[in-house]
Amino acid sequence: MNTFGRIFRLTSFGESHGKAIGGIVDGCPAGISIDMAFVQSELDRRRPGQSEITTQRKESDRVEFLSGIFEGKTLGSPIAFVVWNKDQQSRDYDDLKDVFRPSHADYTYQQKYGIRDHRGGGRSSARETVARVVAGAIAKIVLKDVGVDIRAFVSQVADVVIGRDYRELDLSLTESNMIRCPDPESAERMIRKIGEAAALRDTVGGVITCVVKGVPPGWGEPVFNKLHADLGFAMLGINAVKGFDYGSGFGGTLMTGSQHNDIFVTGKGGVHTLTNHSGGIQGGISNGEEIYFRVAFKPIATLLREQETIDRDHNPVKILPGGRHDPCVLPRAVPVVEAMAALVLADHYLLQNLYI
Amino acid sequence: MNTFGRIFRLTSFGESHGKAIGGIVDGCPAGISIDMAFVQSELDRRRPGQSEITTQRKESDRVEFLSGIFEGKTLGSPIAFVVWNKDQQSRDYDDLKDVFRPSHADYTYQQKYGIRDHRGGGRSSARETVARVVAGAIAKIVLKDVGVDIRAFVSQVADVVIGRDYRELDLSLTESNMIRCPDPESAERMIRKIGEAAALRDTVGGVITCVVKGVPPGWGEPVFNKLHADLGFAMLGINAVKGFDYGSGFGGTLMTGSQHNDIFVTGKGGVHTLTNHSGGIQGGISNGEEIYFRVAFKPIATLLREQETIDRDHNPVKILPGGRHDPCVLPRAVPVVEAMAALVLADHYLLQNLYI
Amino acid sequence: MNTFGRIFRLTSFGESHGKAIGGIVDGCPAGISIDMAFVQSELDRRRPGQSEITTQRKESDRVEFLSGIFEGKTLGSPIAFVVWNKDQQSRDYDDLKDVFRPSHADYTYQQKYGIRDHRGGGRSSARETVARVVAGAIAKIVLKDVGVDIRAFVSQVADVVIGRDYRELDLSLTESNMIRCPDPESAERMIRKIGEAAALRDTVGGVITCVVKGVPPGWGEPVFNKLHADLGFAMLGINAVKGFDYGSGFGGTLMTGSQHNDIFVTGKGGVHTLTNHSGGIQGGISNGEEIYFRVAFKPIATLLREQETIDRDHNPVKILPGGRHDPCVLPRAVPVVEAMAALVLADHYLLQNLYI
Amino acid sequence: MNTFGRIFRLTSFGESHGKAIGGIVDGCPAGISIDMAFVQSELDRRRPGQSEITTQRKESDRVEFLSGIFEGKTLGSPIAFVVWNKDQQSRDYDDLKDVFRPSHADYTYQQKYGIRDHRGGGRSSARETVARVVAGAIAKIVLKDVGVDIRAFVSQVADVVIGRDYRELDLSLTESNMIRCPDPESAERMIRKIGEAAALRDTVGGVITCVVKGVPPGWGEPVFNKLHADLGFAMLGINAVKGFDYGSGFGGTLMTGSQHNDIFVTGKGGVHTLTNHSGGIQGGISNGEEIYFRVAFKPIATLLREQETIDRDHNPVKILPGGRHDPCVLPRAVPVVEAMAALVLADHYLLQNLYI
Repeated sequence: MNTFGRIFRLTSFGESHGKAIGGIVDGCPAGISIDMAFVQSELDRRRPGQSEITTQRKESDRVEFLSGIFEGKTLGSPIAFVVWNKDQQSRDYDDLKDVFRPSHADYTYQQKYGIRDHRGGGRSSARETVARVVAGAIAKIVLKDVGVDIRAFVSQVADVVIGRDYRELDLSLTESNMIRCPDPESAERMIRKIGEAAALRDTVGGVITCVVKGVPPGWGEPVFNKLHADLGFAMLGINAVKGFDYGSGFGGTLMTGSQHNDIFVTGKGGVHTLTNHSGGIQGGISNGEEIYFRVAFKPIATLLREQETIDRDHNPVKILPGGRHDPCVLPRAVPVVEAMAALVLADHYLLQNLYI
Repeated sequence: MNTFGRIFRLTSFGESHGKAIGGIVDGCPAGISIDMAFVQSELDRRRPGQSEITTQRKESDRVEFLSGIFEGKTLGSPIAFVVWNKDQQSRDYDDLKDVFRPSHADYTYQQKYGIRDHRGGGRSSARETVARVVAGAIAKIVLKDVGVDIRAFVSQVADVVIGRDYRELDLSLTESNMIRCPDPESAERMIRKIGEAAALRDTVGGVITCVVKGVPPGWGEPVFNKLHADLGFAMLGINAVKGFDYGSGFGGTLMTGSQHNDIFVTGKGGVHTLTNHSGGIQGGISNGEEIYFRVAFKPIATLLREQETIDRDHNPVKILPGGRHDPCVLPRAVPVVEAMAALVLADHYLLQNLYI
Repeated sequence: MNTFGRIFRLTSFGESHGKAIGGIVDGCPAGISIDMAFVQSELDRRRPGQSEITTQRKESDRVEFLSGIFEGKTLGSPIAFVVWNKDQQSRDYDDLKDVFRPSHADYTYQQKYGIRDHRGGGRSSARETVARVVAGAIAKIVLKDVGVDIRAFVSQVADVVIGRDYRELDLSLTESNMIRCPDPESAERMIRKIGEAAALRDTVGGVITCVVKGVPPGWGEPVFNKLHADLGFAMLGINAVKGFDYGSGFGGTLMTGSQHNDIFVTGKGGVHTLTNHSGGIQGGISNGEEIYFRVAFKPIATLLREQETIDRDHNPVKILPGGRHDPCVLPRAVPVVEAMAALVLADHYLLQNLYI
Repeated sequence: MNTFGRIFRLTSFGESHGKAIGGIVDGCPAGISIDMAFVQSELDRRRPGQSEITTQRKESDRVEFLSGIFEGKTLGSPIAFVVWNKDQQSRDYDDLKDVFRPSHADYTYQQKYGIRDHRGGGRSSARETVARVVAGAIAKIVLKDVGVDIRAFVSQVADVVIGRDYRELDLSLTESNMIRCPDPESAERMIRKIGEAAALRDTVGGVITCVVKGVPPGWGEPVFNKLHADLGFAMLGINAVKGFDYGSGFGGTLMTGSQHNDIFVTGKGGVHTLTNHSGGIQGGISNGEEIYFRVAFKPIATLLREQETIDRDHNPVKILPGGRHDPCVLPRAVPVVEAMAALVLADHYLLQNLYI
């Protein structure tokens, strides 16, 4: 159950404080040039310690490929990679060995497996997303060749919301600030909001929006594996995610059918729709318009303040976590959202390719 | 790509105006007594023509089992079933043979497959959910034996929202009105809202909430197949669904970590949490609390009024659909939401069983 | 576990004396014309009662398609089909309700499931292969378009063996006799051998050889899913099969490397090998030469004579089966071998297509 | 397509002269103590250079686990492992860069992927089986707890055949000689045969027999995934394997039904069969008797003598391979056969467990 995808598949492994995080990408077409610098740069976007609003843990996080690439090109065989774990301060977690942190996976892992690696959250740590970002970078390279471009950004932090449609934003500005919000004014307010929460030893959540351009009509499967169902599945599998919607989304429930329907027109570029409440997907299949969706993240559960909870014997205890933690997961989650979208789309690209 | 699940699996088939809709349930444990009347009653909840706010198409929709059940009990072999299509007025759809209805799957099917069955929407029709409801009924029977109870209800229609937490509602009232809302006063307003839209030959959307009781701790897989990711995937695969969230959901993005964390306590029934913003799932694994989630449905695309669109040659045309259609999909989608939740949970029940 | 294949997939269902045998073919490309007469003719080749050396049960076995085909062409949606069970003389099996027939699946089903449909062997009956033949016929149609031709024939019955290499035989003669052996002289001896066994109320086994022409280089996956591993898996899943080898097979173990190696040469048609001990597959991938393999069938376990065995309470009993049974499974297994080969090859054709 | 199994799954990676060979075992139950010395000892059985009849390449082949094991026990999370490649003399293969060796995978890889790693055979090298042996060792540990014991041995080399039934052999002698044949007298003749072939710069093939004790009734799936079909699939996926049969196998085709049927009797240990032509499997499901099967290996294709072939431009060339190669693959394939059997059986053990 640690495999994602049907044709383009990632199998991931690794605990936060084990030897390494890594994975195997299977099903990648042969003969594709892998730009190593690009893969590493994607990993750097996820890295902790990259700015003052992310955790100060230093994780150099260099990806090392073990197979599947020969003289810079994919062989068609499985692409294995590892990112060695370093800077583990496992002793910081000794206190947590026998307690269940509130709203973490400690209790449920213990119930499911009867055993757990408590150090740094073990397998439940968001450090596991390292593997997703590496695999997603490879998927992005596959997709780039067919003109697909994926861009995620932070559109909400706590109650600070970008007030504008994504079409009015310059998405090339996303990387220009440390919160990864393409609206400079909102970015500033978001950063301030995070700072306020951090000062109170508290955390905040928010929303990431993702926009995908260049998907041609015909990708997606019409019943269970609707393109948006696979995208939603991918996003809901990211740590701390609580919700997903696409196109008009939850807001669309307030519209009438006559407002919501996207009227087809024929223009110079071929068939288009006048509006895009469908979010680029109709009947589970891409229609050639831009795909966009939102991903809701809860506030991080680890607080640098005392909290009540229970221990393994179910007795009440108080905890005060050590370690270094983000006050807001969103900026570092942006490349993870993009990576998971890329995995889904590379898979559907190949699935559709198969019949043509 | 018409198979759902890993252990408890449904493979579905059928076009709206073909001979039949049906499926095969594989992986159901042997020796389980199948209450045929219950299965049929679930199908009846989905049936058109059951009330004045649903389509007046008469579909008797009797399920017929072809295999896998012997002397009333499951054999462990695949359970095949069919629901014969009747009352098809395919001629109503002749006008639609060469046009693409706005916000339907007509255009995308044509792009994907180069061919489509235009009659009644073919495979893209919500009639396909018949198979889900039958399979879901079997899953419910499997789950009932281990104490799991699944209840969905309409919590919003257009801008009419139940203003109360589900814990304040008497969910046994859901079936007492034709909109399937357990709050009688809200139900009345919802029905009125639908009537108003229908009078304008328009349609409305809304939200279904689903509550699952009795799931023990330990179900779910912690990485890609988080229990809520599989639930979200299942819901997003239902026709007209635009969004999914669970527990605190999108609303949880406005909370701080200190507000959001669910504190563990030990009570007489064992471990519990004081609040349940986690929605019964932590780290992707059930924690024994109630699971609840929301599913957003867009307004139905088929309007009984004239609309502009294009035909197969991409020329502009006007359409005025015939046929009989629901002004609001929600009441009939309630059993579909429950069915898909049951399929996910039966699968995770067996997956977890495997290691114990 | 009743699904076969990854892209081109058959999910089958049905007990011998249940309502129907059937299946769903998913993943078949859209737009393919289905020659219904051809599909039915394949089923007729498997039918009982077609000659004096097969069982005299009359099974008309008409295939009925329920979905996935529109105006004679595949839609890309799942193709469901049923073959209704008729002429069931279930009472013939009443005596067998509480006994375990030797070398049948009665005992193991009971141990696995704790329940079984004893009538006609239930799910363990070779009647289940009806679904394989229908699905295989569709696969053959898909393959025919790319020039792949699959021909199986009986090459051994008991100790009667065709003494010649398949390349010396005229495979178009296979259907000219009731044993389906392209060597008329051997066919006659085989038929006599079966007659002798039947006269003694005994049964015989043998070998089916299958030859596949027209597979281009590049099909197959090089590690676990080697093309011959998938073919072997498919054959070993047919009732009564005890062994599989391909190319030089078991006989190749007696050769030295210098005898066994197939030397590459470049001829007018491109690259070829001087010999073909590889059986058209090297490193698990087709090399463009003819693929050939052998499938060993044991003698049928049902004897029309008294045998000792035990009953459900594990007490010794004697049984004398009623019912009508084949003295030799081989002639009717020929279309099943071809069907399973077609399913494997259609799957690999699509899998390879995906990356091109 | 580099994943094996459904519940207990191995995903493998690695090219012969790449950085490492390794894999991820997913689906292993939690809380199982992993005896590292045992895992390493299994790998040592596969290692080259262990005796004078195997290649003199020195590969220390130490397994390094990267995840999934904590304080000596499995966590339930994926178990990743690597075996670093050393002693690669890639220059030995420079001559082979542009030629296709006879009966190797060089030509078919080039045709399938359009690119290949020519060094040491790349992904097609039998070195890939390192990953299978490590994963198989873990599967053996899982199976040992439920009393399953798997023993393979060499039963034929070229025309030297053990003349006795496996039940007359002392299988504990298998590891006592370098050919891994439990019959000392046959072992000596086999070793002599290999020596003779090596002296002629030729190679020989043979047969490995495998015996599995302790499988209880009920494992296996009755239709496509018959227990023997999964075993055969596993074996046919091993490099150089040309055939598989189980129980009476190909020899059983010469028996009549009355000879072949295994009569059930009730003894002190419960239900048994008087004979075991069924090879412990009936209707695809284990019946509690011993499972045994044979695996045919062709002679190795790499000959240390000049051979004719073609190059990438399809021109005729002569090759004389350098490198160090086995004259007979069988002794080192014994642990691989056991490993693959263990993977299949661990998978079916868990699958069956699921419903109990």
